[in-house]
Amino acid sequence: MKNTIITLALLFTFLGLNAQTHSHSGAQPLSYPNIDGYVTLKTDLHMHSVFSDGKVWPTIRVEEALRENLDAISLTEHLEYQPHKEDIPHPDRNRAYHLAMEEAKEHELLIVPGSEITRSAPVGHNNAVFITDANELLHDDAKDAFTAAKKQQAFVFWNHPAWYAQSMAGTPILSDFQKERIKKSELHGIEVINTVDYSEESLALALENNLTIMGTSDIHGLIDWSYTQKGNHRPITLVFAKEKSIEGLKVALFAGRTVAVYNDLLVGKASYLKPLLKASIEIVSAAYIGKTQVLEIELKNISSSDLLFENAMSFTFYDSSPVFEIPAGESKIIKIKTLNRLGSLDLKLEALGAFTAPKEHPMIEWKINVE
Amino acid sequence: MKNTIITLALLFTFLGLNAQTHSHSGAQPLSYPNIDGYVTLKTDLHMHSVFSDGKVWPTIRVEEALRENLDAISLTEHLEYQPHKEDIPHPDRNRAYHLAMEEAKEHELLIVPGSEITRSAPVGHNNAVFITDANELLHDDAKDAFTAAKKQQAFVFWNHPAWYAQSMAGTPILSDFQKERIKKSELHGIEVINTVDYSEESLALALENNLTIMGTSDIHGLIDWSYTQKGNHRPITLVFAKEKSIEGLKVALFAGRTVAVYNDLLVGKASYLKPLLKASIEIVSAAYIGKTQVLEIELKNISSSDLLFENAMSFTFYDSSPVFEIPAGESKIIKIKTLNRLGSLDLKLEALGAFTAPKEHPMIEWKINVE
Amino acid sequence: MKNTIITLALLFTFLGLNAQTHSHSGAQPLSYPNIDGYVTLKTDLHMHSVFSDGKVWPTIRVEEALRENLDAISLTEHLEYQPHKEDIPHPDRNRAYHLAMEEAKEHELLIVPGSEITRSAPVGHNNAVFITDANELLHDDAKDAFTAAKKQQAFVFWNHPAWYAQSMAGTPILSDFQKERIKKSELHGIEVINTVDYSEESLALALENNLTIMGTSDIHGLIDWSYTQKGNHRPITLVFAKEKSIEGLKVALFAGRTVAVYNDLLVGKASYLKPLLKASIEIVSAAYIGKTQVLEIELKNISSSDLLFENAMSFTFYDSSPVFEIPAGESKIIKIKTLNRLGSLDLKLEALGAFTAPKEHPMIEWKINVE
Amino acid sequence: MKNTIITLALLFTFLGLNAQTHSHSGAQPLSYPNIDGYVTLKTDLHMHSVFSDGKVWPTIRVEEALRENLDAISLTEHLEYQPHKEDIPHPDRNRAYHLAMEEAKEHELLIVPGSEITRSAPVGHNNAVFITDANELLHDDAKDAFTAAKKQQAFVFWNHPAWYAQSMAGTPILSDFQKERIKKSELHGIEVINTVDYSEESLALALENNLTIMGTSDIHGLIDWSYTQKGNHRPITLVFAKEKSIEGLKVALFAGRTVAVYNDLLVGKASYLKPLLKASIEIVSAAYIGKTQVLEIELKNISSSDLLFENAMSFTFYDSSPVFEIPAGESKIIKIKTLNRLGSLDLKLEALGAFTAPKEHPMIEWKINVE
Repeated sequence: MKNTIITLALLFTFLGLNAQTHSHSGAQPLSYPNIDGYVTLKTDLHMHSVFSDGKVWPTIRVEEALRENLDAISLTEHLEYQPHKEDIPHPDRNRAYHLAMEEAKEHELLIVPGSEITRSAPVGHNNAVFITDANELLHDDAKDAFTAAKKQQAFVFWNHPAWYAQSMAGTPILSDFQKERIKKSELHGIEVINTVDYSEESLALALENNLTIMGTSDIHGLIDWSYTQKGNHRPITLVFAKEKSIEGLKVALFAGRTVAVYNDLLVGKASYLKPLLKASIEIVSAAYIGKTQVLEIELKNISSSDLLFENAMSFTFYDSSPVFEIPAGESKIIKIKTLNRLGSLDLKLEALGAFTAPKEHPMIEWKINVE
Repeated sequence: MKNTIITLALLFTFLGLNAQTHSHSGAQPLSYPNIDGYVTLKTDLHMHSVFSDGKVWPTIRVEEALRENLDAISLTEHLEYQPHKEDIPHPDRNRAYHLAMEEAKEHELLIVPGSEITRSAPVGHNNAVFITDANELLHDDAKDAFTAAKKQQAFVFWNHPAWYAQSMAGTPILSDFQKERIKKSELHGIEVINTVDYSEESLALALENNLTIMGTSDIHGLIDWSYTQKGNHRPITLVFAKEKSIEGLKVALFAGRTVAVYNDLLVGKASYLKPLLKASIEIVSAAYIGKTQVLEIELKNISSSDLLFENAMSFTFYDSSPVFEIPAGESKIIKIKTLNRLGSLDLKLEALGAFTAPKEHPMIEWKINVE
Repeated sequence: MKNTIITLALLFTFLGLNAQTHSHSGAQPLSYPNIDGYVTLKTDLHMHSVFSDGKVWPTIRVEEALRENLDAISLTEHLEYQPHKEDIPHPDRNRAYHLAMEEAKEHELLIVPGSEITRSAPVGHNNAVFITDANELLHDDAKDAFTAAKKQQAFVFWNHPAWYAQSMAGTPILSDFQKERIKKSELHGIEVINTVDYSEESLALALENNLTIMGTSDIHGLIDWSYTQKGNHRPITLVFAKEKSIEGLKVALFAGRTVAVYNDLLVGKASYLKPLLKASIEIVSAAYIGKTQVLEIELKNISSSDLLFENAMSFTFYDSSPVFEIPAGESKIIKIKTLNRLGSLDLKLEALGAFTAPKEHPMIEWKINVE
Repeated sequence: MKNTIITLALLFTFLGLNAQTHSHSGAQPLSYPNIDGYVTLKTDLHMHSVFSDGKVWPTIRVEEALRENLDAISLTEHLEYQPHKEDIPHPDRNRAYHLAMEEAKEHELLIVPGSEITRSAPVGHNNAVFITDANELLHDDAKDAFTAAKKQQAFVFWNHPAWYAQSMAGTPILSDFQKERIKKSELHGIEVINTVDYSEESLALALENNLTIMGTSDIHGLIDWSYTQKGNHRPITLVFAKEKSIEGLKVALFAGRTVAVYNDLLVGKASYLKPLLKASIEIVSAAYIGKTQVLEIELKNISSSDLLFENAMSFTFYDSSPVFEIPAGESKIIKIKTLNRLGSLDLKLEALGAFTAPKEHPMIEWKINVE
C-alpha cells in the first residue's frame, strides 16, 4: 500500500540524486535510427513471468522494457510448462498479456500477445506471437498447436535452435518437422541470437529458408541481473515497420525486415543491416586541415551499439588505426590522406561487428561533401 | 526451462566479463563486525512479494538478500491487502514463507515467518514475525490479530509510524491503541527507519517506551531499482544475537539488541551502537613520525557504512580536518599532535552520522598503544 | 552451493574494480559564488618552478591554474634556495614571474609577482607578494628582507608555521621575530592550510593577531600528481575583492577578506565564511507535499566543495538524517516537518566542515519563502 | 625545501587513501610478456625537457616513465632548437641525460643518451640514440651530423616522416638524403607511430628498407595531459632484447627486433609481432561442457593492450560473436563447437588490431590441450 506514495517520493529523491547515481545506474534507454521508408522498432518477443517459469509479475516486464526504451514486447509464457500452477491456477493463458496491457496502457510500449509452444527436440521451443487466444494453442500434438497458431494468423519463430540441451553439438538440426512447418507457412522466423548465444548456423538456416532473423532475451529472472549488471544490453530484434503499431510490426516480421542485435553484434539481411549501419553514423563535419591534403571527418554513432570498422578505401588514415571503434553515442574524428584536395569523398568502411551471412561483414558507404 | 542451464552458462560468462562490469554492478555484500558477546546479524524483516502487493516471486527476495549478504529476512505479506488474489487465490497465508524457505534451503540465510497486520490510523501497519501460522492472525478486529500474534509468541513492531499518509504532520501519534498493546506486551518494536525515511520522533518513542529500534526496506518492487541504482544500500536492522539462528534472533529482538542502519546513518541504543562503532574501526598502526611529537594512526573502517567523525580530544590534528569521513572498507591516516611522546593514547571521536537519541551523537573511545 | 560460486564471482568482480581506472579526467575547474559586495577570487599564492626548487617550467604553473579555473597565482621562488642555479644562472629573480606573465597574457588569470624569504626557525619561510622587484629582497639579515618588502608595499605571510620540520610538536611558535614583524606591519598573513596540512593553532594565531587567513598548495611537482590523482583539489585562498584585478586582490588581502579552502574544509573569519556558505546554497524550490505539513525544499550546492550540514532547527526532517552532505554541484531535497503550514521558514543549518575558529562551526540561515 | 619531507608524508597518505583514489588515478603501469629467447623491453626513445622545447625538468620524465613501468627512455633534446637558451645556457648538450641518470640511479629504468638532429624537409627530424657525446653532433650540414652519429655507433631513426607540417599529403617522402643515409648505414629505424599518428606508408618504408619499426611519445608537455587523461597510454616501442641492459637494447634495435604499440594498435614484423601476441594470451582452461561437443576455453590477455580477434577456424562459436575483444588484463571464455570431442585443438584467431604490413593482420595459433 505504501509503495505508490513511496514511488512518488523516490521519484523526487531520484531527481535530487541524479548526479550521484550515474555509477550505479541500471539499464540505459536504447536508441537506433530509422531507415529510409521505415521506423525502426526495438522489440523483445521472448520472455517469461510468474505465469510460466519466470520470477516476476508481468508488470515488471513492462517496467524493464520502458527502462530500455523498447517499442514492443511479448510475454511468451510456456503453454505446457507452468511450475507455479499450484499457486497461480488461472485457466486463461492470455492472463499475463492482459496484466501487461493494463500496466502499459499509459505508455507507448506495444504489448504483443504471444505464447511458447514447448516440446523436446526435434520440435523444440517455438514462439507464436500476434495470437488471438493462447488457450486455443494447447494441444497434445505439436502439429495441432502450429495449425491453431496459423489459424490465428500468428507469426511463429523457432527458439534457440542451437541450444546444446537439445542438440549436443550446439548446432541446429532442421528436421522434417520444421521443413514441413516451413512448407506449410507455419514457421516464419528463427532465433539467431537467444540470450547471450549467437549461432552462425541458425543464421545460415534463416537465409536458406527465408526465415525472419530474430534476437530475444528469453528473460526469466531480472534483466538487470542477467544483462545490465554484466555491462550488456538485452538482445533485441530491430524491426523495420511502416508504422509503430501492432499491425505494422506484424507485417514487417512476416516480410523479414529485421536485424538481431546484442550489444555490438548486429546480424541481418544486407538489405536492412546496411541501411541501418549507414543511418547509425552521422557525418558531423568534413574539412581539409589547413593547406594539406589531409581530410578531417567527424563521425557520430547515433546508435546504442558500439560500432567497429575497418578502412576499406585505397586512401589511408593520417592518425587512427585503420581498425577503429566508435562507441555508442560518441564521435570520432578520422583523418584521411586523399593525396589531392577533393570536393567529395566516398567513405567506405567494413563493419567488423556486423554480419549479413556467416563470416560476412557488410561494406558501408557514405558520400561525403567537403566543406 | 532454459533458464537454469543458462544461469550456469552466464555464471562462467560472468567470470570472463568481470572487469567490464564495474560500472554496472548491483548490490554489494554488506558486512558489519561482531561485538563483544554477540554475533551481528544483518536483517530486513519487512518486505513483500506477489503474495500481497509486491511485484516479484518470493524467490527473488531470497536472491536479493543473498546478494546483499543478509543473515535473515521476513516476507511480511499484508494479511488484509492482496491485490493479486484473483490470480493467486492460495488460501494459506504462510505460502510466501514456504516458497522462500524452499529457495533458501541450501544457503545460510534465515527465513523468519511473518505477516503484516494492516489497518488505517490509529492502528496503522504492524509486522508480526516469528509467527507459527499466519492464517490465525486474520481477524476483523485489529486487537484480536494482536492477541493471536501474542499467542504465537510473535515479536510485533509498528511500521512507519511517521508516514504522512497516516499522519499529516509526518510525526508518529501514540494512540490508546498502541499504549494498550505496549502495556499488554503485544507490541515490542518500532520502525525508526522505513524505506528512505528516518524519524527522530519514532526514535524518541522507542526510547520512552522501551521498544526495539527497527530499520527495514519495506520493498515492493526491486531492491536494485529502489536502492542500489541510486547509490544506496537497503535499510536494515543489525541484531546482536547470541548465535545465528531463528531463536537467537528472536531473543535478541525481544531484548532490544539492535541498531537500525541506512547507508551512513546508524541509530540505536548507546549500549549497542557504541560497541558497534568501536568494533567498526580497526587500529592498523600507531607510531610517531621521526623525532616529532606527531603521532600517526591508521584507522580502518571494516563496516559497510561510511563513518563520519569529529575529533573530541584536546589534542589537535596535524593535517586532516577535525571532521572527517572514513568510507566503508577504507583506511584513513590521522596525525595527532600529542605535545609529548606518549606510550598510549585515548583516541576519542564523536560519531556524527550516528544517533543514540534524537540529536545525540555517541562518543567513541579507543585505547591506542604506540608502537 | 550455487550461491557460494556466485559469491566468489562477485568477490572477484569487486577485487577487479580496485585496479580499474574508469575515469581519466584531470583537475576540474573550481567555482565559488560571489558574496554581497565582493567578487570571489580563487587564488594560490605559494608555488615553485625550476627557477627555485620546483620541477616544471613556469608555463606549466599557468596551465595548471587555468585547468583549475583559478583567478590568480604567484610563483614564489625561494630567494635563497636555488638548487638548479648551475643550469639556470639567470640573475634576475623576477624571471619566473615574467615567463608566467608571457604565458598568461591571453587569459584572464592574474599573475602576482612574489618571492619566498627562506630561513630556518624562528624566522621560517615567508612569502612576499605584490612586490616590485624580487632582487631587492635579497639580504643576509632576514629583517632587512622584510624591510625591503615593506618598502615595496608587499603583502607578506608566514608559510606553514606548524611544519614539524621547524617545530617538532607540529604547532606554530610565535617568536619575538614574528611579534616584531607584526608590530611593524611587516607581516600580514599566515598560512592556516599549507599543502594537505590544516593547523588549528595557526588559525588561532590568525584570529588573535588579526592576520589574514591563507591556504596554498606550495606545489613543487605536478598538481595532478600531488592532488588531483588522489581525489583532491589543491588548497586555495578565496579572496573577496571589490574587483578582479591585481590592485583589488591586494586591497582585499590586506583587509583580511579571505577563506582558506581545501576540498570540503573551509576556514575563515565568520564575516566572510558565513556569507560564502550562504551563497553556496541555492534554494531551488520549497513547497508542501500534498495536504501534509511536510515542507519539501531542494537545495543546490553551487560551490566546488562538498558541504556537510547538521539540522539546527527545532523542526525535524521527514526522511534524511539530520547530518547530511550536499556534494559539490549537486542538489539535495530535504523534507521538514513544520507541524503547521508556514508561509516562510528560517532554515538553519550548522556547517560541520567549516570553521570560524578552532572547533567552531558556523550556523547558516536562509529565509525560505514557501511556494 | 619542504617538498622532500612532504613527499614522504604524501607517500603515507597515499597508502591510506588508496581505495578512494582509483577513479582519479593517473598513468597505469604497462606490462607485456617476454617472448621465446628475449626479454620484452618497454621503451620510449623520443621526448623533450626544458633543455630543448619541453616544459619540465628532466627528472619529471624519469618519474613519468617509472609510473608507466617503462624499461628505457631517452631524452632526445633538439640539438638545433633551444627556445630556453637565454635561461638555460648550459653548453653541454649531454646535460639533460646526466640529470635524468642522477634521478634514475636507484631505479631499474635505463637512460639512453640521445639527441634529435633537427632540420626542415627533406632531412626532417632524426633521433640518434646510444651516442657518446651529443656535443659532437652539432654541425651545419646535416650529413656531418649523421656521420658524427655513426662514428659514435649511434642507432639513428627518422622521426614522424609522415608529419603534414613537412609533407602536405601526410605521406613520407623518401628523398635522396634518406636513401644515401640508409645506404651508408647511417639511418637504421623509422617512426611508424609518433604521438597519436600511425602511418601505413612509414610501415611500408620500414619493411622495404629493412628499417627498425619505432613508436614514440615525442612528449613535450605532460604524459598525463597528452595521453593518460584522454584514456590512452603513451606510444612505445617494445624491444626484444637478450637482456635488460643498454647494450642488450642497442643490439636488439640494430637487429630490428621491435613492435610499436599505441593502446590496442600493435605494428611490427611478423617474426616478432606474432610471438608477442601468442605470448599475450594465456590459456587458463579448456574443457567440454557436460556431454556436449562444445569446448569451453578461457583466454587471459596478460598484456596492457586490448586485443581484438576474429575466429579464423572452420569451427564456429557457441555464444560470442566471432569478432571479440579481450581487454587488457582480463579474461574471456569462448565456446567452440568442435562437432566431435577432440583431445586437442588448434585455436586460430586473426588479430584485427595488429599489423605486420599495411592492411595485413597476423594469424595467431595456439595448441590447446583439452582437460
